[in-house]
Amino acid sequence: MMLSDDHEVLFLHGGASTQFMQVPMNLLDTKDTAAYADTGVWSSKAIQEARAFGKVDIVCSSKEQNYTSIPDDFAVPHDAKYFHITTNNTIYGTQWHNIPHTSNVLVADMSSDIFSRRLRFSDFGLIYAGAQKNIGPAGTTLVVVRKDLLGKVKRHIPTILDYRLHIAEKSMLNTPPVFAIYVCMLTLKWIKEMGGLETMEKQNKLKSDLLYTEIDRNELFIPRVLAKDRSHMNVCFEAMDESIEARFLEYAKAEGIVGIKGHRLAGAFRASLYNALPVESVQYLTEVMKTFTQKQG
Amino acid sequence: MMLSDDHEVLFLHGGASTQFMQVPMNLLDTKDTAAYADTGVWSSKAIQEARAFGKVDIVCSSKEQNYTSIPDDFAVPHDAKYFHITTNNTIYGTQWHNIPHTSNVLVADMSSDIFSRRLRFSDFGLIYAGAQKNIGPAGTTLVVVRKDLLGKVKRHIPTILDYRLHIAEKSMLNTPPVFAIYVCMLTLKWIKEMGGLETMEKQNKLKSDLLYTEIDRNELFIPRVLAKDRSHMNVCFEAMDESIEARFLEYAKAEGIVGIKGHRLAGAFRASLYNALPVESVQYLTEVMKTFTQKQG
Repeated sequence: MMLSDDHEVLFLHGGASTQFMQVPMNLLDTKDTAAYADTGVWSSKAIQEARAFGKVDIVCSSKEQNYTSIPDDFAVPHDAKYFHITTNNTIYGTQWHNIPHTSNVLVADMSSDIFSRRLRFSDFGLIYAGAQKNIGPAGTTLVVVRKDLLGKVKRHIPTILDYRLHIAEKSMLNTPPVFAIYVCMLTLKWIKEMGGLETMEKQNKLKSDLLYTEIDRNELFIPRVLAKDRSHMNVCFEAMDESIEARFLEYAKAEGIVGIKGHRLAGAFRASLYNALPVESVQYLTEVMKTFTQKQG
Repeated sequence: MMLSDDHEVLFLHGGASTQFMQVPMNLLDTKDTAAYADTGVWSSKAIQEARAFGKVDIVCSSKEQNYTSIPDDFAVPHDAKYFHITTNNTIYGTQWHNIPHTSNVLVADMSSDIFSRRLRFSDFGLIYAGAQKNIGPAGTTLVVVRKDLLGKVKRHIPTILDYRLHIAEKSMLNTPPVFAIYVCMLTLKWIKEMGGLETMEKQNKLKSDLLYTEIDRNELFIPRVLAKDRSHMNVCFEAMDESIEARFLEYAKAEGIVGIKGHRLAGAFRASLYNALPVESVQYLTEVMKTFTQKQG
């Protein structure tokens, strides 16, 4: 990542859920306000944890649209300590394609789309990303934090949750999750060898375009998300009716395709196209969708 | 482990350092007192973290003896919410061979000797053990907790740090550190196949007896710890003088023995004999000590 010396990169224990509370614990004083965008389940969980540490202002939400879009008309109060977004929403299949730029410190949960595209990472005050989508095995979380944001809250922070101490001890404050970090290194080397984030971005655009094109074309399937906000990582779609849904799942399974059932909160279908998934797998899925549709005759 | 239904077994994210604060956060109210035994670096860290959550009463300490023994004359106030011990002290090479029984709830950091011997595990209110000595890779910590101890503190506990929620979600509150837990399972199966804790205990006693016997016998080396409190996991010893110390490290290295330099806080030598180390390795070390001594003529 292109980062200035203002930022520090850490691989910490735990998952994104740990950061839901660790971020406000380190950045938000009790009387301060943090702004959050509510774009799905993970945002909601982040909001819930932050409430214990300060005031939370939900500046925008797509909850009433059942999270089928990303809000694009909102204002963030200037005095909000930070503005938190979830760059990609796995369960509902939406993604921030335009990162909002306000006067606030920008905090992002990038767990499900980090390293999937080029971004100006130095624009962010704090980035966190659980490893298990595009980086490595579950058990470590990448945290990139601008150092000047730290040390400003009055509360006691337990040693192991204090970013400053991890930075001071050069990531050896305690025994790190060594194996998970090692596999992250291998994945990062692989990304570099493949051509870096430019290649990842092209491949992910190609994969998601292939699938969304088929969903839009095929009369049996319906896209779940507004075109402008469709995720390049998690493609969510529905069938024309429930009987087709059940039949397609069964047909796809017989053709060797598993794991496309949607999350229980969103239902229907979800195809996850993380960096590791080859284009050929998506091509195969679209072919299976086509032959299934022909057979329904 | 032989445990009643009163206890719950969890494999959580993080290491023992996470538990240093998570234990008092879940068990100790601000006005309550917890009793701690100070037997080394890890005890001291646990004490430091607990102070942020309630009152801490250090009921015994071997600090003035430079942690060369385990305290055996102390009293724990009846009203202490729990009594915390570190069953094995890696840096100074001491171990609680007699687990103290008081009227208090017993909490133990067993990171460095869990599954090395038979214990009445159900006597403990809470046990925690970072995986990376006798269980598996760094990145997960085993927590065994008596359920009736939970839910009694008034403070807000962040979701991911609340034992009750991990229990309620059957260890799937968030994505667990799956690979680390898988390797723990393999290790536990190996222990079972080897004959269980009875075999581990015999092997560890055999290994540590072999080494302590040579240290006691050999005129160039001095044991660091009182005989009654010597650890069966980490054997710490010194040389008669510094020049012998340096020469022995060099000689041992030439003979293929590495990793016996003591922790920088204790100096000299430390041989760690965790479950995975075969008896043959200890036999070889004692032979190298003997030939080294002969050569000094």
